[in-house]
Amino acid sequence: MKFNIALLAGDGIGPEVIDQAVKVSDAVAKKFGHEITWKPALTGAAAIDAVGEPYPDETHAICAASDAVLFGAIGHPKYDNDPSAPVRPEQGLLKMRKKLGLFANVRPTFTFPSLLDKSPLKKERIEGTDLVFLRELTGGIYFGEKGRRDNGETAFDNCVYTRAEVQRLAKKGFELAMTRSKKLCCVDKANVLETSRLWRETVQAMEKDYPEVEVSYEFVDAVAMRLVQWPNSYDVLITENLFGDILTDEASVISGSMGLMPSASMGADIALFEPIHGSYPQATGLNIANPMATVLSAAMMFETAFNLPEEGKAIRDAVNKALAEGIVTEDLADGGKAYGTKEVGDWLAANI
Amino acid sequence: MKFNIALLAGDGIGPEVIDQAVKVSDAVAKKFGHEITWKPALTGAAAIDAVGEPYPDETHAICAASDAVLFGAIGHPKYDNDPSAPVRPEQGLLKMRKKLGLFANVRPTFTFPSLLDKSPLKKERIEGTDLVFLRELTGGIYFGEKGRRDNGETAFDNCVYTRAEVQRLAKKGFELAMTRSKKLCCVDKANVLETSRLWRETVQAMEKDYPEVEVSYEFVDAVAMRLVQWPNSYDVLITENLFGDILTDEASVISGSMGLMPSASMGADIALFEPIHGSYPQATGLNIANPMATVLSAAMMFETAFNLPEEGKAIRDAVNKALAEGIVTEDLADGGKAYGTKEVGDWLAANI
Ligand SMILES: CC(C)[C@H](C(=O)O)[C@@H](O)C(=O)O
Ligand SMILES: CC(C)[C@H](C(=O)O)[C@@H](O)C(=O)O
Repeated sequence: MKFNIALLAGDGIGPEVIDQAVKVSDAVAKKFGHEITWKPALTGAAAIDAVGEPYPDETHAICAASDAVLFGAIGHPKYDNDPSAPVRPEQGLLKMRKKLGLFANVRPTFTFPSLLDKSPLKKERIEGTDLVFLRELTGGIYFGEKGRRDNGETAFDNCVYTRAEVQRLAKKGFELAMTRSKKLCCVDKANVLETSRLWRETVQAMEKDYPEVEVSYEFVDAVAMRLVQWPNSYDVLITENLFGDILTDEASVISGSMGLMPSASMGADIALFEPIHGSYPQATGLNIANPMATVLSAAMMFETAFNLPEEGKAIRDAVNKALAEGIVTEDLADGGKAYGTKEVGDWLAANI
Repeated sequence: MKFNIALLAGDGIGPEVIDQAVKVSDAVAKKFGHEITWKPALTGAAAIDAVGEPYPDETHAICAASDAVLFGAIGHPKYDNDPSAPVRPEQGLLKMRKKLGLFANVRPTFTFPSLLDKSPLKKERIEGTDLVFLRELTGGIYFGEKGRRDNGETAFDNCVYTRAEVQRLAKKGFELAMTRSKKLCCVDKANVLETSRLWRETVQAMEKDYPEVEVSYEFVDAVAMRLVQWPNSYDVLITENLFGDILTDEASVISGSMGLMPSASMGADIALFEPIHGSYPQATGLNIANPMATVLSAAMMFETAFNLPEEGKAIRDAVNKALAEGIVTEDLADGGKAYGTKEVGDWLAANI
C-alpha cells in the first residue's frame, strides 16, 4: 500500500523523537512492502517563528490531503508566562483539532511490567492497569462562546454540547468496548451540569444498541479518586473535553510509563497520532529524549488509521524487546547504560 | 463564651457521626467554660422525606441565625440513578452554599504517620504531605445559566466569574499562605478559558499586596498529575468551583487518611464544618462509621469560626491519642480490636 503521512515535528524534542518514528515506520514499510511519502509541515512555536501562525493554512492543506498525521510535541517556554498573549502555540493545537474534525482523543494508560516500579502508586494498586479514555476533543467549554462583560470585570466561558456530538463520541466508545472487556464508563457531572445530563441520557439511549456492553455512570470527582485508588477497575471511559483533559493527564502518571504512552485523535476523515508527553524544552537537541511514545504512536497509526495490525505489532514487539534488553534512554536506564534518542531509534528500526 | 450551633446531621451515617462531634464539643465547652446551644435542623434526603425540600426555609433560618453550622453528610441511594429527578439532595447542598454565601471551601489534605500505609501511593511519595485547597464554592459553572435549546438537542452550562468573586477567594488564599509556608498556587486553565485568564490576572494584581508570598500558576491538568506524583510539593492552592471539586477529591484519597479529613466552608457571616466523606448508606445504623473526620471538623470550627485554638488543639490531641492507642473504628483497626462509632466518641469526650 501507499501512504502520504503529514509530519508535524513541532517544538522542543518534537523533531528528535519524530525522526525515530519515521525511521521505524520506514523499516516497517520496507518489511511489509508499503511505500510511505512523508509530508513535513510547520506547527507550534516553530510555525509562529517562521510564518506568525501556529497552525498555518499550508500545514492544514498538507494534513487534510494526507492519510494520517504524525505529530511530535508543541510548546515553548517563551510563551509560558503569558496565557493571554495574542498568538500562542496551544491555539494552533485547538485550531488543528477543530479544522481536521478530530473529535475523539484516544488515550490509553497501560503498564509495562518492567516499569511498575516507576509508578508513584504501590505495585498492587497499579498492576494490570489497562484502560483507555475517549475524550471528546472538538466541543464543550473549549470551543463555546467566551469573553468579557462589564468593562472586563466579568468573564464567561460557555460549555455547549449537541446530542449528535455526544453520539459520535459514545459510538466510538461502545465499539471500542466491544473489542475489549465490554465495560464502558461514562464520566460526567450529571448532578450539576445540564450538558452532563445530555451526555448521560444520550449514552443511556444507546445502551440498547450494544446489549453486551455493561455501562456504568460515574461523577467526574469520583473518577478522579478511583483512578488513584483502583486504576485497574476501569476499562473504556468516555467523557467530555475538559474532564478528559484533567483525567487523562491524571491517568498518565499513575502507570509509571508516561514516557511510553501514545495517543490518537480521530476524525471522520483523518486521524492524528502523537506521544502524550510535552515538548520538554530543556532536553532539546541533547539526544536524550525517549522516542518510544512517538514510536508507539506510529504503531497505533498502522493499526487504527491503516488497519494493519501486523505492522503495528512489529513495532510493539521491537519496543518490548528494547525494554527487555535495556536499550533505553536515560529516563529508563536506572543506573544502567543510557542510550541516545537516535541510538534507540536505530536499534528499533534494525529490530523490526 | 456562648454559641448557637446549627446541627445538620443529614443522611446515612450523618446522624451517628454528628452525635460524637456533639459529645466531644460539649466536653470541650465544659472544660473551657463555654456554653453551646445546639439547633438541629433537617437537610438532604431526610428533609425531602419530611417536607419535600432538601434545604427547607426553616433550616436556612436556623443556620443564618447561628454562629456556625456543623454538618454530617447527605445523599441517599434512592436518588442516585436519576440525576435529572426534580428534587435531589445535592440541590439542597448547592442552595445552602449559595444562600449562606459560603464562597470558600477549605479542604486540607494531610497525613497521619500511623496511616501512611493506607495510602495508594508509595510511602516516600506521600510522607510529609500537608496541603490545603481553597475551592471557590458559589460561582462558576455550578451557578451559571444552564439549559437546553433546539428541542432539547443542545445543552449548555455557562461558567461565569467576576473579579470581585476571584478577589475574595484569593484574599483568603494569600492570608492562609501567610500563616503557613508562604507558598500559593493558583490553579487554572488560562491557556484555554477566559474565566481562568480573569482568575490569573486578578491574582497577579494582588501579588504586590503580599510581597512575602511566592505565587505560582499551574494548569489544572498539570496539577492533576503532580498531586499524584509529588503531593508534598504543594502547600496552599486556590481554584475555581469545578476544578476544586475534582482536585480536592483526588487529593483526599492520596493521603490514606480520607476517613479523617475535615473541611470548612466559609462565608462573610457564617461558616459550615463537615467531614469530607459521604453518607455511606450501607453503614447506616451499624455503629461502625469513623467519627473522627466529623470530630476534627468540630476542631476546625473552634479554631476558625470561634477563634479558639486551644479548644481545637484539645480535640486534635484527643484524636491523636486515640489513634496512638488504637481506639479506632474498623476501617482503621487493621486486624486489631475495632471500636464502635459511639465508643470512639465516648473515649474522645472522656479524653478532652
Ligand atoms: C495545551 C492545551 C490546550 C491542551 C488541552 O487542554 O487540550 C493539552 O493540555 C492537551 O491535553 O492536549
Ligand atoms: C454533590 C455535589 C453537588 C458536590 C459538588 O460537586 O460540589 C460534591 O461533589 C462536593 O464536592 O461537595
